[in-house]
Amino acid sequence: MKIEIITVGNELLSGKTINLNATYLSKTLLKAQYETSYVSVYPDDKKELQKGIKLSLDRANVIIITGGLGPTLDDNTKEIVSDLLKIPLKYRKDIALDIEKRFGCIASIEEQATVFQTGYIFKNEVGTAPGFAFIYSGKAIILLPGVPSELKDMFEKHALLFIQKHFPPLEKVYQEIVNICLLPELKIDASIKALQVDEDIKIGIYPAHGFVQVTISAKSKDQTVLKKINHIKNQIAADFQDYIYKAEDGKIECAIHDILINRDEKIAFAESCTGGVLSSKITALGGSSKYFLGSFITYSNDLKKSVLNVSETTLKEKGAVSIQAIKEMIEGVFKLTDATYAIAISGIAGPGGATLEKPVGTICLAIAKRGDDIDAGILHLNGSRSTIIEWTANIALGSLFRKIAHNLTYFDK
Amino acid sequence: MKIEIITVGNELLSGKTINLNATYLSKTLLKAQYETSYVSVYPDDKKELQKGIKLSLDRANVIIITGGLGPTLDDNTKEIVSDLLKIPLKYRKDIALDIEKRFGCIASIEEQATVFQTGYIFKNEVGTAPGFAFIYSGKAIILLPGVPSELKDMFEKHALLFIQKHFPPLEKVYQEIVNICLLPELKIDASIKALQVDEDIKIGIYPAHGFVQVTISAKSKDQTVLKKINHIKNQIAADFQDYIYKAEDGKIECAIHDILINRDEKIAFAESCTGGVLSSKITALGGSSKYFLGSFITYSNDLKKSVLNVSETTLKEKGAVSIQAIKEMIEGVFKLTDATYAIAISGIAGPGGATLEKPVGTICLAIAKRGDDIDAGILHLNGSRSTIIEWTANIALGSLFRKIAHNLTYFDK
Repeated sequence: MKIEIITVGNELLSGKTINLNATYLSKTLLKAQYETSYVSVYPDDKKELQKGIKLSLDRANVIIITGGLGPTLDDNTKEIVSDLLKIPLKYRKDIALDIEKRFGCIASIEEQATVFQTGYIFKNEVGTAPGFAFIYSGKAIILLPGVPSELKDMFEKHALLFIQKHFPPLEKVYQEIVNICLLPELKIDASIKALQVDEDIKIGIYPAHGFVQVTISAKSKDQTVLKKINHIKNQIAADFQDYIYKAEDGKIECAIHDILINRDEKIAFAESCTGGVLSSKITALGGSSKYFLGSFITYSNDLKKSVLNVSETTLKEKGAVSIQAIKEMIEGVFKLTDATYAIAISGIAGPGGATLEKPVGTICLAIAKRGDDIDAGILHLNGSRSTIIEWTANIALGSLFRKIAHNLTYFDK
Repeated sequence: MKIEIITVGNELLSGKTINLNATYLSKTLLKAQYETSYVSVYPDDKKELQKGIKLSLDRANVIIITGGLGPTLDDNTKEIVSDLLKIPLKYRKDIALDIEKRFGCIASIEEQATVFQTGYIFKNEVGTAPGFAFIYSGKAIILLPGVPSELKDMFEKHALLFIQKHFPPLEKVYQEIVNICLLPELKIDASIKALQVDEDIKIGIYPAHGFVQVTISAKSKDQTVLKKINHIKNQIAADFQDYIYKAEDGKIECAIHDILINRDEKIAFAESCTGGVLSSKITALGGSSKYFLGSFITYSNDLKKSVLNVSETTLKEKGAVSIQAIKEMIEGVFKLTDATYAIAISGIAGPGGATLEKPVGTICLAIAKRGDDIDAGILHLNGSRSTIIEWTANIALGSLFRKIAHNLTYFDK
């Protein structure tokens, strides 16, 4: 069975909008054990979309079309599908009244309440444009709004169930994920290549800055294959042990969150070159105020001195990007807060600020548990400013995870 | 003339990777005044990609294929194109030596140095997989690596020039952009609807949280249309005057950066619910250390008291999310730094933490110039935690821009 996602909109073809709807749909389909075979993007152009849908009817069994259901001139999806499937559109007073009840007497009601005479109508509980589904020549055609919040609500509440009911997968996709922090892709790759893996099992390695995600998947009619998948998962887990974390979407901050939320331990940071990115990853998680006290973004040397009490001598003799400076920053954090764990970061994210001794990508990182020795060291990263910042924050989080979960240090190996 | 971007990879169809390569290519093509007509995503599957390229040869003039040039079993692009175009592949010692010189004796050299016997070869200056271009039946087929940094380097240095040389656009796309901060989409939409706009001019409105981007574009054989485009641009600019800012990619922090970098004025923040996002937007810009001193992320009430000197009475009687609290936070920032401008934010980003009086999305925001009255008020936002945080940071930056650029306040209107 083949699924095609068709996303419609000039903004997608001009690079103005990133096609996150396609990413969301593929991801959600995979969670429901469906594989996506094609993604296509077409402009707001009647003829092009018409040709695109016809092509899709030739090659896919389930066609999910997002966008073009709104009230503006550019929104053609309903008309095109109506022509193609020979299902007339009709104004429905009950739908108009429902929209009016929720959004007042808006200008687009008539257009939005004009719907297909047959087929399935999905109520839009977030916005105004209803969605639709049809079985046509043994295939499913599903129309969903392009606004991400409306699409998500409608897909999860209606469209996915429609697909599951009418097109249960003959072969389901089974997948397990192993998240590994701090280790380089090459090391993980080498270990996986040494495994004996049957042909029906696919292993994917997805490196990011500071962590690697390994997926082990297989398509199968039943779940017996899960045993093989889990065997491989366990072998990988045995190889990398305390570098492995469990987290939704592979985010290591979620692993830290899950541990700390149940402990009476707090964290606080002192950031220089990461400039708030480290904190923002933690505070993105609802409930983080239970363990996150705050961060001192001491971007200027003056603030490093006046707030964190880094000594004038250290800054003059060793510089702000030095082991001594970050150790004093850690001490400053412990003095100013009652955090159990502290992180301090100071580095050169570039493109300016480099010296011969300290090129762009030189990052000093310190992590400590109150009362214990400070684990501090120097990273040598490369890439753009944004890469270096992101990478540094992820290494800091990975090290914090290992400190919290296993009381292991990053630098003293 | 039609351009199709074909991106290859299972990771794109599983939602594991966002298709940023397609976004980058469309955006860069548009800057070079080319329109993209189609984007297609195919799996790492020989037959599917073959069919996809054949389809593309039927409907497009320029076909850009990214991905599948690497050395693994899943990388089929070279073989498929070789079969299709009947151009044999051949090992080239000079290319192998060049790769070896740059990357050492890596395992994939033989595969990467096996290239097409005819056609154009683009050197990969970032990685190992060369790119290729062919003129075939009057159409261009261009193969580029899927690694974003390699793709970008090669596209800008070679592939775009190839397209411009062999397929100069008959009609160029001319576009001007107006960036507007703080105003709601509806207000901008109404003003634009009142304009007289010729049919050949397309106006796009792209709302984000805290700002709106308006594009005015037209396709034309020559640049006489620019006069019409600029006339409309000026009309919009006249309507919204001091809400308009100039910035690459529409980022308001870039507008702030450009102003402050030339002034002897500094900024510093006190953040609670935005948790570092406000600071991270500023520190993402290289050179921001010239004017950004730092930020106090006082997530806990204890830190608000001990560091920023927010009074116990205020926290008890008014709460941390109150005008009084953020005013005291501003005073704390001015006391601890020599910033010219300060921002303080405290709010309820949700999903927890709400009270009857202060529901999720209640945000207190204060902006001040040292010595002047503090501009403070309450925002009522809605959406997810990440939306509320992002929106708050953008409103803060918009208000800071208007304060710095025009000495205007956000709340005292």
